[in-house]
Amino acid sequence: MIDIEIIGFIAAILTTSAYLPQAFKIWRTKNAESVSLSMYSVMFLGIFLWLVYSIYLKRPSMIFANVITIIIISTIIFLKIKSKKNS
Amino acid sequence: MIDIEIIGFIAAILTTSAYLPQAFKIWRTKNAESVSLSMYSVMFLGIFLWLVYSIYLKRPSMIFANVITIIIISTIIFLKIKSKKNS
Repeated sequence: MIDIEIIGFIAAILTTSAYLPQAFKIWRTKNAESVSLSMYSVMFLGIFLWLVYSIYLKRPSMIFANVITIIIISTIIFLKIKSKKNS
Repeated sequence: MIDIEIIGFIAAILTTSAYLPQAFKIWRTKNAESVSLSMYSVMFLGIFLWLVYSIYLKRPSMIFANVITIIIISTIIFLKIKSKKNS
């Protein structure tokens, strides 16, 4: 039987990497107009609560996924706010 | 002590509702040009594996979140493919 954490880690890599093109595009073009700040703020809060949840369950793949996702989402929010100030 | 599943359900509502404006916008405008099919396909696969993971752990809030997210992402993918065919 395979360890369920392996499934979790594959899931983590897929769901976190789905955010990367968006972050990379904003970074490269320095244009965050198409990104919704309210959507990412709600997402940030949601992922933060999932992080609390996963730390409580002590599940390494979930903690990993939520930490990486929070870093990516924070970067997108940071770039969005920065581009708003510049415009 | 509060039940960790309550935290999970609040997290579930936040992370799933973050996808709704995107789905609703595509539905309303019938325009899915701005959406990346590859990103949503990777996300779909990732969420599917999280669903397997959450069923294994028998965690109601995680199962709920992943089922709802899969429905929303499938709808976005469906609208994207439909709008591609029409263009």
